[in-house]
Amino acid sequence: MEKPYLLFLGDVHDELAAKTAHGIADWRPDWCVGQLRLPGCQADTALADTTVAAAAESGARTLVIAVVNSGGTMPESWTDTIVEAIEHGMDVASGLHMRLEDFPAIAEAAARHGRRLHNVRHSEQRFGTGKGHKRSGKRLLTVGTDCSVGKKYTALALERDMRARGMNADFCATGQTGVFIAERGVAIDAVVADFISGAAEWLSPDNDPDHWDVVEGQGSLFHAAFAGVSLGLLHGAQPDALVLCHEPTRSHMRGLPHAPIPDLAQCIEANIAGARLTNPDCRMVGVAINTSALDGAAAERLLRSTEDRLGLPCVDPMTVGTDAIIDRLD
Amino acid sequence: MEKPYLLFLGDVHDELAAKTAHGIADWRPDWCVGQLRLPGCQADTALADTTVAAAAESGARTLVIAVVNSGGTMPESWTDTIVEAIEHGMDVASGLHMRLEDFPAIAEAAARHGRRLHNVRHSEQRFGTGKGHKRSGKRLLTVGTDCSVGKKYTALALERDMRARGMNADFCATGQTGVFIAERGVAIDAVVADFISGAAEWLSPDNDPDHWDVVEGQGSLFHAAFAGVSLGLLHGAQPDALVLCHEPTRSHMRGLPHAPIPDLAQCIEANIAGARLTNPDCRMVGVAINTSALDGAAAERLLRSTEDRLGLPCVDPMTVGTDAIIDRLD
Repeated sequence: MEKPYLLFLGDVHDELAAKTAHGIADWRPDWCVGQLRLPGCQADTALADTTVAAAAESGARTLVIAVVNSGGTMPESWTDTIVEAIEHGMDVASGLHMRLEDFPAIAEAAARHGRRLHNVRHSEQRFGTGKGHKRSGKRLLTVGTDCSVGKKYTALALERDMRARGMNADFCATGQTGVFIAERGVAIDAVVADFISGAAEWLSPDNDPDHWDVVEGQGSLFHAAFAGVSLGLLHGAQPDALVLCHEPTRSHMRGLPHAPIPDLAQCIEANIAGARLTNPDCRMVGVAINTSALDGAAAERLLRSTEDRLGLPCVDPMTVGTDAIIDRLD
Repeated sequence: MEKPYLLFLGDVHDELAAKTAHGIADWRPDWCVGQLRLPGCQADTALADTTVAAAAESGARTLVIAVVNSGGTMPESWTDTIVEAIEHGMDVASGLHMRLEDFPAIAEAAARHGRRLHNVRHSEQRFGTGKGHKRSGKRLLTVGTDCSVGKKYTALALERDMRARGMNADFCATGQTGVFIAERGVAIDAVVADFISGAAEWLSPDNDPDHWDVVEGQGSLFHAAFAGVSLGLLHGAQPDALVLCHEPTRSHMRGLPHAPIPDLAQCIEANIAGARLTNPDCRMVGVAINTSALDGAAAERLLRSTEDRLGLPCVDPMTVGTDAIIDRLD
């Protein structure tokens, strides 16, 4: 995909729906010329607002549909903006389940202007079914109490901090935003169900004994819509180490107002039990809490009390980093 | 799909690989004119061996590729026979992941002769993500210690025996063989991973208070390749009652020679724990053991000892029926 990017946020109703935009803006700001928002958009990255014409002027090569939503659909009303970007010479990239070429106006504009359409969620790779054989090298997987709680940010922060200590570590993207950031990986929730574990095994093959794959987790074993993806990824990733990620102000499971957030200890137990099917030595090595909605003192109290309660290092990867967790890896 | 069928077994290496053929031959024998086997085939249904020409003569309307294999691929060497069937006026139906039209010789023959290609595993239905809301009506799901242990046969036997008692019950197919038998349903392992639970919810919608959907289970929570499918189906089916299915002579998990068969009590505990996320009242109501590889006395001893050990009715649905389990439904 050609850089730099113009991040398109559409008219999404909250920040979580713009999590692809936030992910790219936070981790790859140098790749972005700005954000483009439609009237009513309730999300905002740190990037400057711009228009298609101004972004093209600034050299934007690809319009990134930088939103996520349950089901991965896109409103028809966004096509005008996408076509405008194509007419200004941009390629278009999307991480949604729907393919860009399924919108006739977009397909036609791309053909007319010779621009490319990237459907990042759809891998061209053919996967086998999972085998469960122990692979060489080491793996860490981030798991969550819920969707959108910081599994990707935690994995990226772990990669950053492990590399800073001279460790041999690679982030492995398993979702569309991660694939945009890493420029490789597989959106595991878009794989045919029979191949979830097989795709996770493909993503993290045999490696050097001291090498760590830091695998981005997906969903939650306690989310009624997505737990199958989470369990298949847990089995296929075959982690030696797990880090549990949590967002402490969430009142219910994402998109399911009737479903309570599971207890952290229960999450730890369920993930360890699942992981041991393919790696009997798997351990939980730490907890990552997204404290962005708390003030400094409240955040600190929560981190310390959770640490005391669970007996595991407990950090916010975006404020204090992940060193306390990395200390537990051997 | 037009009946009657000619069941094609190819040159598969064991009976389990022909489980689609066995399923159709056992549950819908009146729909079949015979079986067609290539040299080296190690599977055999109770149906008469025949040729393409003789089957066409007998009125066969559809050649059913009646095999399953891990990964859902088909050897190129089978295309000659499939093309021959098309040339004799038959449509072709397959339950594999690969689409029939992806084989150029097959696609071309079908186009030339105006015959239809059915890819039963690929639903045209668009699914939403799972919601986890409690639905009206009642549901029973068969779950397993492993793949291919009798979950479909148990569900079909339960439907048969429940209807014989005047209960309002419907078998819900979740795999390609079940879809052939029921002529509706969805091959849940071929759904995009994000929609496993959503597809299971779609399959078994709100219904009358006294109605039972008897949902065919898939895989096993303890199978390293397919547990994600099993968990998503468990959450989406939202069962009130579970029946655990087991094949007592299996020495390791299907296709994974290094993986031991889980203990039945452990399976019961894990399935109940998973099911309670979307239905806190879910209960295990019985165990179905496939005793076809045991003699009568050994089968009887195993059923009684398992019943004593687990405190649940324990039957072979194909020899003694499922009444002891149905007695436990309310």
